[in-house]
Amino acid sequence: MTFEAPVQDLLFNIAHLSQWDQVTALPDYSGIDLSDAGAVLEEFGKFCAEVIAPLNQPGDQAASHFRDGKVVLPEGFAEAYGQFVEMGWQSLPHPEAWGGQGLPRVVGAAATEILNAANMSFALCPLLTDGAIEALLTAGSEAQKQTYLPHLTSGRWTGTMNLTEPQAGSDLALLRTRAERAGDGSYRITGTKIFITYGEHDMAENTVHLVLARLPDAPAGVKGISLFVVPKFMVEADGSLGARNAVRCVSVEHKLGIKASPTAVLDYEGATGFLVGEENCGLDYMFVMMNAARYAVGLQGVAIAERATQRAIAYARERVQSRPVDGSAREAVTIIHHPDVRRLLMRMKALTEGCRALAACAAGWHDLTHHGQVDGAAEIAEFLVPLVKGYSTETGVEVASLGVQVHGGMGFIEETGAAQHYRDARILPIYEGTTAIQANDLLGRKTLRDQGATARRLAAMIAATETELAAGSAAAQAVAARLTKARGDFEAAVDYLCTEGDPNAAFGGSVPYLMLAGNLVAGWQLAHALLAAEAAMDNDPAFMTAKIATARFYADHILPETDTQRLRITEGAQSLLAAAF
Amino acid sequence: MTFEAPVQDLLFNIAHLSQWDQVTALPDYSGIDLSDAGAVLEEFGKFCAEVIAPLNQPGDQAASHFRDGKVVLPEGFAEAYGQFVEMGWQSLPHPEAWGGQGLPRVVGAAATEILNAANMSFALCPLLTDGAIEALLTAGSEAQKQTYLPHLTSGRWTGTMNLTEPQAGSDLALLRTRAERAGDGSYRITGTKIFITYGEHDMAENTVHLVLARLPDAPAGVKGISLFVVPKFMVEADGSLGARNAVRCVSVEHKLGIKASPTAVLDYEGATGFLVGEENCGLDYMFVMMNAARYAVGLQGVAIAERATQRAIAYARERVQSRPVDGSAREAVTIIHHPDVRRLLMRMKALTEGCRALAACAAGWHDLTHHGQVDGAAEIAEFLVPLVKGYSTETGVEVASLGVQVHGGMGFIEETGAAQHYRDARILPIYEGTTAIQANDLLGRKTLRDQGATARRLAAMIAATETELAAGSAAAQAVAARLTKARGDFEAAVDYLCTEGDPNAAFGGSVPYLMLAGNLVAGWQLAHALLAAEAAMDNDPAFMTAKIATARFYADHILPETDTQRLRITEGAQSLLAAAF
Repeated sequence: MTFEAPVQDLLFNIAHLSQWDQVTALPDYSGIDLSDAGAVLEEFGKFCAEVIAPLNQPGDQAASHFRDGKVVLPEGFAEAYGQFVEMGWQSLPHPEAWGGQGLPRVVGAAATEILNAANMSFALCPLLTDGAIEALLTAGSEAQKQTYLPHLTSGRWTGTMNLTEPQAGSDLALLRTRAERAGDGSYRITGTKIFITYGEHDMAENTVHLVLARLPDAPAGVKGISLFVVPKFMVEADGSLGARNAVRCVSVEHKLGIKASPTAVLDYEGATGFLVGEENCGLDYMFVMMNAARYAVGLQGVAIAERATQRAIAYARERVQSRPVDGSAREAVTIIHHPDVRRLLMRMKALTEGCRALAACAAGWHDLTHHGQVDGAAEIAEFLVPLVKGYSTETGVEVASLGVQVHGGMGFIEETGAAQHYRDARILPIYEGTTAIQANDLLGRKTLRDQGATARRLAAMIAATETELAAGSAAAQAVAARLTKARGDFEAAVDYLCTEGDPNAAFGGSVPYLMLAGNLVAGWQLAHALLAAEAAMDNDPAFMTAKIATARFYADHILPETDTQRLRITEGAQSLLAAAF
Repeated sequence: MTFEAPVQDLLFNIAHLSQWDQVTALPDYSGIDLSDAGAVLEEFGKFCAEVIAPLNQPGDQAASHFRDGKVVLPEGFAEAYGQFVEMGWQSLPHPEAWGGQGLPRVVGAAATEILNAANMSFALCPLLTDGAIEALLTAGSEAQKQTYLPHLTSGRWTGTMNLTEPQAGSDLALLRTRAERAGDGSYRITGTKIFITYGEHDMAENTVHLVLARLPDAPAGVKGISLFVVPKFMVEADGSLGARNAVRCVSVEHKLGIKASPTAVLDYEGATGFLVGEENCGLDYMFVMMNAARYAVGLQGVAIAERATQRAIAYARERVQSRPVDGSAREAVTIIHHPDVRRLLMRMKALTEGCRALAACAAGWHDLTHHGQVDGAAEIAEFLVPLVKGYSTETGVEVASLGVQVHGGMGFIEETGAAQHYRDARILPIYEGTTAIQANDLLGRKTLRDQGATARRLAAMIAATETELAAGSAAAQAVAARLTKARGDFEAAVDYLCTEGDPNAAFGGSVPYLMLAGNLVAGWQLAHALLAAEAAMDNDPAFMTAKIATARFYADHILPETDTQRLRITEGAQSLLAAAF
């Protein structure tokens, strides 16, 4: 099965759902027009389809493994990574000052989705590098930026995030890795970090580890965590690479999925590190990096859903089995004609496009935020990050599972490829903060802290769209009614959560609240897409008609799930908390 | 992690949800009392926990494989199977006439669940043998019964079902395997069968293949399929084993899960087979076998959910991470204290117990049916089979996935064991008829054919329980309100489906209808369980209190999902069918 990058849908979203006019009105992005973005995505899509996607299944079968102290990547990865770097793809979204191409997130996100759909294991390496760049841009010294950013931006060096330790996963307060002042301005880092994606490999000349550690005199808990940059090979004053640093890989994990990407256990044995920013402020910087990474993981959810959907549609178009239920043919037909297969495929397609629309919307708000020029954009952008991460990854797991189902028995056979997506997808609601962690963030920091003000601003924007829809076509009016109901569920949830005095009751509803909000915003954005498609019908009637159909399906079949989520939140706490374990 | 058979819950269900008094009033089961059943299940649970469960993870890691023309099973499987046979466990539910213990399904089902929870890959072998016994009991000649049943009942020989061919999965009309009359009363079977569970192995002395094939002069389609018994080793007149038959394994599949169980491709090259029953009636007999197998696969859904839930609870009780959200402790606590972890675990527990309750109810109706003594029981029993199969297996996949989530990053590491359940569970909504096939059966044969009469009988029984609940405790009344709403959704769906003239529209809602009905009946049975637990509180207050809590959680958090399912059925067809592919 061949992979085709969904460039048309991505461009449609950039044009209609990401506030493109406002984004490109910002000074940083003023020179960019939509056809430039289209050209970049077309070319990148071609590269990913031809070079990266074919490595996905062989990579899964070979898996990264640890042998004689080294990590062995699947065949072809290093060569493909070389081409990726050579063609400058790492640099797309990064500042021109450091060699980047300075594209806004609304375009960069589309590229990230494409790369992840082609090969999630491969894509993790550039994704982590993006995170390291973000952290150094936020808090690195000028010298650190000079030393690392050009190489990271080009992709010649790669980055990692070192947070987790065996006893410290979601809870970074429990972190134990030590950093001791060496006296020369540098630090000696000692401790064990686990779950380090691409923590060791030989695709790049150097690896730049961003490491959280604790100074001897640091306060307890999360306020005593500092961020360090620890290169795998020391960087000499002239920029050349020197001795190997005292950090080594001791094993890689045997995982359910994303098997081609090495997940390393790293031992820091007095490794030389350099403080990034201020002492004891590491968590704040890491949050910047994590927010970018969380958004990107949400894109991985969309990406795996896209790949699984493409594969399922292709299979359903080929597999012949059973006569049609309406008696319209006397011979068996391709299974795409059977109503339940259509239902499965439409659900996959609608969830994928809904999450993609949500991500496009969030990217636009982020771009408006990042450059500090639009009042109030930051609150909306930050509200949307846990939705993109939480809703799209839970959805990615579901869509990948439905993809197996469409294949019937063949879906359970590894050679078919559907099972890999099901395995790969399962990490997404876990890493970079589980869905519960996202939901705590959404509820605690982004809803309760402002007493629901941002949530209600969002609801008001949705209401405005409903007004627009209600004045439109029959399809638009039908969607308006569903959206009004779903928004009501959201507002009822917000009202309840903001007045519930028992934190256990409120946080017991946090994941349902996240899922409700994600569903609503995705449905809202698809409603926008419906209006845009109706207006642009003549440009491409087949595409626009399909978009309208997807938006309607989403509204009829998926948006109504908000009702049950509201009930769980507003009426479910008592029976949740009564349970004894 | 150790496995503990949920004997207390199984016995509670037998006593309260399976019409035990009526079942044991039947002549065949008149000697059995509840303490006998309890003694059997306790002993079997101990055997499964000590002997079978420890092979589950090593079996997954080793996997069955094909080497030099032979299937190699994981270490320990053959020895454990030997003990299983030696102790007579295969014989539990089978007729005493053939060496069985003649226990009713309500007890046999409990044993099947326990074995599958211990080790689904292992359990598949006895499960297929059960199916072969069922088929021969239904349609075998007296001589065939004499030849095969004693050995199958003891477990010394094992059985297989040979339906699927590369081009014929859900659609058996496309079956091509040929059967030619040999002139001596036997037949020569030629063709390739795929997905044959335990199609080849050396744990037993002989394997009895039940094979669907077509005679040269057979009508086209499903009316031209005959059933044959094809032994791996020919059985001589004196009952001794003779030459090897012309059926050979050519490979085993590389699967996502249930890796320890060999899934064989079998080549029949003029193998000697014997007609079971009448020519061209094979599908009818196979349906008997399949209905038993479908019910058993539903139990596998409950079983994997039980195992995943036990594992997740054990992990959540050990893993320390983060302070409580209500500020009740200053140090990190075990994660079972966090509201969202409780929500995940309660959902897992409620779905597991709900599906178990549904299965117990269905088993009772089956027992009342099987012996033809209770009017109208057959329709209810047959209505419940697709619910047990469809709802419990979809649920099994969800619960296994939630189990991974509870483990966080550790859940994605294969050594932890949670990932195996997620992989194993995924076959359940596929084999023995996908969820869509179950839903077609439920809608077509079991709802439309009698114009909803059986469905409405079931609704009336549920309404009677609501009346009982409404006169009870506050908890019972709260559950009654939820149940009334869910039953209304079911009735609305039945009304719509019975009057919808477009079969594509009706069958587009078939899986939502199955899920709605499964959810409702599970919730109904848990409501029964709540009443029984209130009445039996003094027997074991901790168990009864937990049962009431689970029933309430199910009613508040899971039953309300019927609302969205109803909308999908009654208002979703237009947007489903409008979509172009």
